[in-house]
Amino acid sequence: MPAEHIKQRRVEFSETDLAGIIHYSSYFQYMEEAEHEFFRSMGFSIKLHEDGASYGFPRISTLCEYSRPLEFEDVVDIQLRVFRVGETSITYQFLFSEGQAEVARGEVSVACVTRDESGRMSSCKLPASLAGKLSVYQGEPLTFGPGSDKG
Amino acid sequence: MPAEHIKQRRVEFSETDLAGIIHYSSYFQYMEEAEHEFFRSMGFSIKLHEDGASYGFPRISTLCEYSRPLEFEDVVDIQLRVFRVGETSITYQFLFSEGQAEVARGEVSVACVTRDESGRMSSCKLPASLAGKLSVYQGEPLTFGPGSDKG
Amino acid sequence: MPAEHIKQRRVEFSETDLAGIIHYSSYFQYMEEAEHEFFRSMGFSIKLHEDGASYGFPRISTLCEYSRPLEFEDVVDIQLRVFRVGETSITYQFLFSEGQAEVARGEVSVACVTRDESGRMSSCKLPASLAGKLSVYQGEPLTFGPGSDKG
Amino acid sequence: MPAEHIKQRRVEFSETDLAGIIHYSSYFQYMEEAEHEFFRSMGFSIKLHEDGASYGFPRISTLCEYSRPLEFEDVVDIQLRVFRVGETSITYQFLFSEGQAEVARGEVSVACVTRDESGRMSSCKLPASLAGKLSVYQGEPLTFGPGSDKG
Repeated sequence: MPAEHIKQRRVEFSETDLAGIIHYSSYFQYMEEAEHEFFRSMGFSIKLHEDGASYGFPRISTLCEYSRPLEFEDVVDIQLRVFRVGETSITYQFLFSEGQAEVARGEVSVACVTRDESGRMSSCKLPASLAGKLSVYQGEPLTFGPGSDKG
Repeated sequence: MPAEHIKQRRVEFSETDLAGIIHYSSYFQYMEEAEHEFFRSMGFSIKLHEDGASYGFPRISTLCEYSRPLEFEDVVDIQLRVFRVGETSITYQFLFSEGQAEVARGEVSVACVTRDESGRMSSCKLPASLAGKLSVYQGEPLTFGPGSDKG
Repeated sequence: MPAEHIKQRRVEFSETDLAGIIHYSSYFQYMEEAEHEFFRSMGFSIKLHEDGASYGFPRISTLCEYSRPLEFEDVVDIQLRVFRVGETSITYQFLFSEGQAEVARGEVSVACVTRDESGRMSSCKLPASLAGKLSVYQGEPLTFGPGSDKG
Repeated sequence: MPAEHIKQRRVEFSETDLAGIIHYSSYFQYMEEAEHEFFRSMGFSIKLHEDGASYGFPRISTLCEYSRPLEFEDVVDIQLRVFRVGETSITYQFLFSEGQAEVARGEVSVACVTRDESGRMSSCKLPASLAGKLSVYQGEPLTFGPGSDKG
C-alpha cells in the first residue's frame, strides 16, 4: 500500500537554457517521470490495461513553486506523495530536494479516463486493482502560495 | 502601456505524446513564448540589458488548469494578461482558447534578478524602462481551483 | 507540383541550452515542422487518411551539419527541398539560413507506412494523391561531409 | 584509457509522440546523455574547466539511422564508441540496442572551443588532460547508408 515514492534524477544538458539553469517546464517532466516510476514500482504501467479496458491519466491541473535553481549535472530527489485518491482522479504532491535543501514543490491532479473506439476520452472510476493499492501519504501536506512574498 | 498580448500557436508533432494529445508541459513553453513575444512587442528582449545591467526573469511559481485536450495541428490563441506588477516581480495570467472554447488557463510569477560576475542571481527592482510600460489588465481576473470538482 | 517550401522560425528560449545557443536536437524539430507545413501547403496533414487507410511517415535516417550557432530570438529560414521520391519513401534536404549566411544543412528520409489493427507498422506505397503532387527539386543538391576538415 | 561507454536509458512518456513511438529527435538527446556520462566516468564534466580555461563542445555534424521503433518504457542500451580523436575535435559512434536487437546507430562530431570574454567561440586543441585519457575504439566501425535500400 505505497503512499510515496522517491525518484532520483540528474539534470541533463538539454534541459538547461541560456540562463544556465534547468528550464521551468522540465519540473513537470520530472514529476511525471516520478509518477510513472511509482506505477512501475506497484507492477503497473501508466498505459494501463485492466479487465479488457484501456485507461489513461490526463492532467486536470498542475502547479510548481521554485525555491532554488537547479544546474546541469545536479542530482535531485523527487519525492512523490499520494495526496488524494478520488473515485475518478488522483492528486499527487512532489517535493524536490538536493541534499537537505528544498529546491521546488509541486502538485498534479490527474483524471482517470477510458477511450471509446473513436478515441474520445470519458471520465471513469479508477480500476479496482489500482485503487486497492494506493494509500494516502500521512505526513504534513505541502502548502502552496500565495503566502510567499513576491515583492 | 500594454496590459495584454495574444499569441497564436499551432501544436507541433513533437509536442504530442502517445496519448495523441499535447503534453501537459508544453503549455508552460507556450506561456513563456507568449511572454517573450509580449516583451518584443514593447521593444524589449527577455534577455534584458538596460543602463549597463543584465536582467533575468526566473520563475517563482506557475500553475495550469486544463479544460480540453489539444491535438496535433490545432491552432490555439494564448492571451497573456499582466495580472500584477510588483517592485521586484511580475505575475501574468494566460487564457488558452480554440475558437470560442477555453482550452486551459495558467498563471506565472517571475522574479526580476541581476547576476554578479560569478553568475549568482540576486533579486532586484524591475528596470524603470520596463516598469513604465507595463499596466495591469483591467478585466475580470482568472480564478483557479479547488472549486473544480475533481471526483 | 511543389518541390520546395520555406518555413521561417524564431529560436525560442526553451530551445537554448547553457552554452547560450540552440540545442543541436532542435534542428530536427525544425526540419519536421517545415515538412509538416509543406504537407499543409499541399492540402494534406502528415496524419494522412486517404481512401480509407491511415498513413504514417517514420524516419529512416537523418543527418545535420552545423555551420554557425543560432541564438535566442534569431530568425532562421528553413528551406525544404524534395530530394528523392521513391515508391515507399521520401527524402528531403534542408538548408537553414539567417539572412544570406548558411547556418546548417540537413537531410531526412522517411518511410511511408500503414498500421494494422494491432498498431504494427508495415511499409507501403505512397498514396497516389500525395505522390502525384510531389516533384523533385531541380537545383544543385546539398552535399554532406566528410569533406569538411574536422581538425 | 576508455574507448567506449554504455548508458542504459528508459523511454519516457514525454519523449513519445502521437505515433505512439519515441520521437526521432530524442535519439540525439540520448547520444548526448551518453557522451556526458562518459565524461563523468573519466572524472570530467562536459562543462570543462582546465588550467584556467573554459571549454565547450558544440556539434559539427550528426546523423542517425533508425532500424526499429522504441516505445514508452522500453529500456535501451546506448553504446558510445570513441571513433576519432583529432587535434581540435572528437567523433563518437553510437549503437542503440534493445536486448540483442539493434534499434538505431548514430554518429556525432564535436569541436573543442574556448570562449573569449564576449562569449565568442573559437576552435582550440583538446585539453591535454582529456586527450590523454581518450583512446579509439578498436572494434569494427559502424557504417552508414546510402547502402540501405530506401525503396
